[in-house]
Amino acid sequence: MTPLAERVLARDRRALAQAITLVESTRPEDEAEARTLLTALLPRTGGAARVGISGAPGVGKSTLIEAFGLHLTGLGHKLAVLAVDPSSRRSGGSILGDKTRMAELARHPDAFIRPSPAAGSLGGVARRTREAMLVCEAAGFDVVLIETVGVGQSEVAVADLVDSFVLLLGPGGGDDLQGIKRGIMELADIVAVTKGDGTLLTAARHVAADVSAALRIVRPAVEGWQPPVIVTSAIEGKGMAELWRAIGDHRRALGAAGIASRRAAQAKDWFRSELAGLLLAELQAHPDTAALIARLEDEVASGRLAPAEAARQALAAHPGARST
Amino acid sequence: MTPLAERVLARDRRALAQAITLVESTRPEDEAEARTLLTALLPRTGGAARVGISGAPGVGKSTLIEAFGLHLTGLGHKLAVLAVDPSSRRSGGSILGDKTRMAELARHPDAFIRPSPAAGSLGGVARRTREAMLVCEAAGFDVVLIETVGVGQSEVAVADLVDSFVLLLGPGGGDDLQGIKRGIMELADIVAVTKGDGTLLTAARHVAADVSAALRIVRPAVEGWQPPVIVTSAIEGKGMAELWRAIGDHRRALGAAGIASRRAAQAKDWFRSELAGLLLAELQAHPDTAALIARLEDEVASGRLAPAEAARQALAAHPGARST
Repeated sequence: MTPLAERVLARDRRALAQAITLVESTRPEDEAEARTLLTALLPRTGGAARVGISGAPGVGKSTLIEAFGLHLTGLGHKLAVLAVDPSSRRSGGSILGDKTRMAELARHPDAFIRPSPAAGSLGGVARRTREAMLVCEAAGFDVVLIETVGVGQSEVAVADLVDSFVLLLGPGGGDDLQGIKRGIMELADIVAVTKGDGTLLTAARHVAADVSAALRIVRPAVEGWQPPVIVTSAIEGKGMAELWRAIGDHRRALGAAGIASRRAAQAKDWFRSELAGLLLAELQAHPDTAALIARLEDEVASGRLAPAEAARQALAAHPGARST
Repeated sequence: MTPLAERVLARDRRALAQAITLVESTRPEDEAEARTLLTALLPRTGGAARVGISGAPGVGKSTLIEAFGLHLTGLGHKLAVLAVDPSSRRSGGSILGDKTRMAELARHPDAFIRPSPAAGSLGGVARRTREAMLVCEAAGFDVVLIETVGVGQSEVAVADLVDSFVLLLGPGGGDDLQGIKRGIMELADIVAVTKGDGTLLTAARHVAADVSAALRIVRPAVEGWQPPVIVTSAIEGKGMAELWRAIGDHRRALGAAGIASRRAAQAKDWFRSELAGLLLAELQAHPDTAALIARLEDEVASGRLAPAEAARQALAAHPGARST
């Protein structure tokens, strides 16, 4: 047990921030220490409700997360908010980067807000966020909210990190209504429509009704779980209790065993993709092989070479390859 | 140019069947010959409209495919029907296994029906089907229909093989209506409701209306392409012209460049996953490593080991591994 691990388990906030910086570090010299830390903390992880939350820019994500977060801390929960945003460097940390957008929640003693790790591959960012989540669990947070702005496949990556996935939708009407990104609606365990107040209330209710109808056509992922659609208003604090109740209902629908097996499957997937990634990286670490793979990829893309054949040729160049 | 390749290009049916048997073969001693054949045929591939078609058991898939296929041959098209069904051995070749369900189409000189390769991993079955598709294109078929019964992720695998993906839905009402499997609706470029005749016509129209509404909520994958929903009747031959027109419209919406880049991206993905698969297989070819990976997977699943750490340990056992 390292001193840092002990301080994390003792819920020392500075240690928490330090520990996350360590697991998020991409510096090779930090790798061994990060590994030791995680191994030490691992037995104390898994205690949080892991919730993913996604919404397009302009949907009012930060506003809703702050209102929802304050509702949870008001109930006595300890809440960590993490983010998966592969574009955070380019966009200057568009999401969660400036805590000012969640000023009140950021100041709350029972809340911890962490910006997305600096840009990298989606897989890299998601993995670092996954490990940050484990650190937060070890530090005693009982709710971990993982936000994503929905860059390409980031929702899918987040869904692979959490127990419940909440999709935020705007009330539409405005230009921000581009419809739900393909593949995302069906990840949603719960849908929350934002800005359900004032002149937008009617529009929000319409969106909620349309989405409910659409979701009824899709077979539920969890037997008997029909994703609820909740109209919320961050300003009026409306729908926050319903949202938390829906998350609880979803967890009960999954059941303890269901959550455990979902997490086990997620962990196995992570292991497999980590391993595949490392193997590919190892293969490409050799400059000649990297060049070969790039060339093969072009030939495959242009239809001059069959993918299976290209893969065989790439593998044949592998130092550890058996003669094929 | 091998004699077999020449006979395939000469559109010799027996050679076609032989060639597909060769590329589908899992016998190591066939591998080199299959590779040579594909390499020889590759320059002559790519000429077909690649269409995926999926539907739950009982939806009337075979009946629709036969009616649609006869419509296409009636228009002078040369049609190949292939299948992706990882469960085909278990289920005794539930789909396309018995051509009797497409007796008339099977006898047609311009049609070629091929059952799913014997069961294997989904990836394996899909890859062999992909290569069979290339052989069919080289043999001059201008429409390749790839059917899947929708076992788990097989629709996703088929969508990765084709230009256009058609989802079949039953008229519902009966017990066969379990809703659309999650993740599938959003793959659909075109939706066809089956059995739109007699007493089920009204029900079919209702399903079509509901699905249209649901699809309008999802952002189109192709800018400006809103998946059409077509009510069909295999018995009355209704909707067959509309279905073919919709496929043509979708291809025009993609554009030649769109189709080319879609195929290029698909081929790259296949190459990457082939390579990752080969690397993992190579790693597990060593009994000790295979046992280690199995143990690591259990520890990861039980939360005793972090996936990233497990992956590092597995890689460290790799013969070709650099010291990490």
